[in-house]
Amino acid sequence: MHDHFALLAFVTVAAVLEQAYFSMQVIWARRKYKISPPSTSGHPGFERIFRAQLNCTEYFPLFISILWVAGYFFHEGTAAACGLFYLYMRYEYFHGYAASAQERLKPMYISATLIWILIGLSLFGLTEHFVFAYFGVRIKEMLLGWRL
Amino acid sequence: MHDHFALLAFVTVAAVLEQAYFSMQVIWARRKYKISPPSTSGHPGFERIFRAQLNCTEYFPLFISILWVAGYFFHEGTAAACGLFYLYMRYEYFHGYAASAQERLKPMYISATLIWILIGLSLFGLTEHFVFAYFGVRIKEMLLGWRL
Amino acid sequence: MHDHFALLAFVTVAAVLEQAYFSMQVIWARRKYKISPPSTSGHPGFERIFRAQLNCTEYFPLFISILWVAGYFFHEGTAAACGLFYLYMRYEYFHGYAASAQERLKPMYISATLIWILIGLSLFGLTEHFVFAYFGVRIKEMLLGWRL
Repeated sequence: MHDHFALLAFVTVAAVLEQAYFSMQVIWARRKYKISPPSTSGHPGFERIFRAQLNCTEYFPLFISILWVAGYFFHEGTAAACGLFYLYMRYEYFHGYAASAQERLKPMYISATLIWILIGLSLFGLTEHFVFAYFGVRIKEMLLGWRL
Repeated sequence: MHDHFALLAFVTVAAVLEQAYFSMQVIWARRKYKISPPSTSGHPGFERIFRAQLNCTEYFPLFISILWVAGYFFHEGTAAACGLFYLYMRYEYFHGYAASAQERLKPMYISATLIWILIGLSLFGLTEHFVFAYFGVRIKEMLLGWRL
Repeated sequence: MHDHFALLAFVTVAAVLEQAYFSMQVIWARRKYKISPPSTSGHPGFERIFRAQLNCTEYFPLFISILWVAGYFFHEGTAAACGLFYLYMRYEYFHGYAASAQERLKPMYISATLIWILIGLSLFGLTEHFVFAYFGVRIKEMLLGWRL
C-alpha cells in the first residue's frame, strides 16, 4: 500500500524542509535588522522576508492537501512532479520577495498556476471516481475510445 | 479503497477552492484601498478582509485534519456533511467580517460549533476503535443492544 | 487498516484541541487588554500571547504532515510519542511566551528538535522504502546483520 503514496510523502518532507529553511531566514533577518519578537515590523527588508515566509506558510496546508488528493485520485507521479516544481517556485518567490516586492510576482504567478493545475487534476480524478462508482463508466477509457 | 474517502477528498478540494476565493478577495481589497504588499494595515475595510482571510487560513489545517479523522473513525458521510456546512458558514463569516466586525460573530460561532462536533465524532470513533482493539467490545452495537 | 494510524489520529485530535485552547487564550487576552478585532497590537502582554498562538498555528500543519509521514514510513508508536511530547512542549512554549519573550526559548528549541527528529525518522523510513522497492534490500535487517 505504501507504494501508492511514497512519492507524495517525499514531496511532503521536502515541503517541510523548505518551510524550516524559510523560518531560519526570518530568524536571521531578525538578527540582521535587530527586530526582536513579538515585533514584526520595522525595516522594509525585514517586513518583506517576514511576509514572504508568512505567505508560504499560509499556502503550505493548501498545497499539501491538494497534492495528496491529486496524487490519489489522478496520478501520483504527475502530482509529485507538480509538487516539486511548486516548491522550486516557492524558493524563487521567497528570494525574489526578499530582494523587492516586484521580484516576487513571476514565481508567485507560476506557483499559483501549479496549485490550479493540482486542483484541476483533483477535480478530474474525483469526477472519474464518482462517475465510475455510480454509473460504472470509466471516463479515461471512454476518451481514449473516442480518439480511436 | 478510494471509496472510503472520496467524499472527504471532495470536501477538501472545495475547502481549497474557498481559500483561493478568499485570497483573491484580499488581492482585490489591496487594489481598492491602494495598500501594496508587504503592508497589511491602513483602511479598516481592508484590515477586516485581511483578518477574515487570515482567520480562515488559520482554521483550514485544523478543519482538514479533524474532517479526515472524523470521516475515517466515525462516519464519512456525516463528516463530509458537517464539512460542507462548515465551508458555507466560513463564506458567511468572511462576507460578514468584510461588512463589519459585528456581523462576523454568528457564522463564527456556528463554524466553531461544527469544529467541536467533528472533534466529538473523532473522539467517539477513536474510543470505539481502541475499545474494540483492546477489549473486543463494539460500543455502537452495545448501545443499540441496550435500547432494544 | 485503521490499526496502522489510530495513534496518529489520536495525536492529531489532541493537537487540534490544543490549538482550540490557544485560540481561547487569545480571546480572553483580547478581553483582558480590551483589544477588539481586527486590531492585533497594543499591550505587549497581548502581543506576546497573539504571537505565541500564531507561531503554534504556523507550525501545526508542518507538525501534522511530518507526524503522519514518520508514523507511516518509520514507526507509528515512535512518531506518536514524539508527537505527544511536541504538544507538551508547545504548551510550555505558549505559557512561557505569555510570561516573557525570554521564557519561550527553551520549549521552542525542544519542540523544534522534535520536528527535526520526526523529519529524520521520515527520511530514514522513506529511504528504506525506496531502497527496498528498487534494490530489494531491507536496510534495517542489513544494519542488524552488521551488528551480529
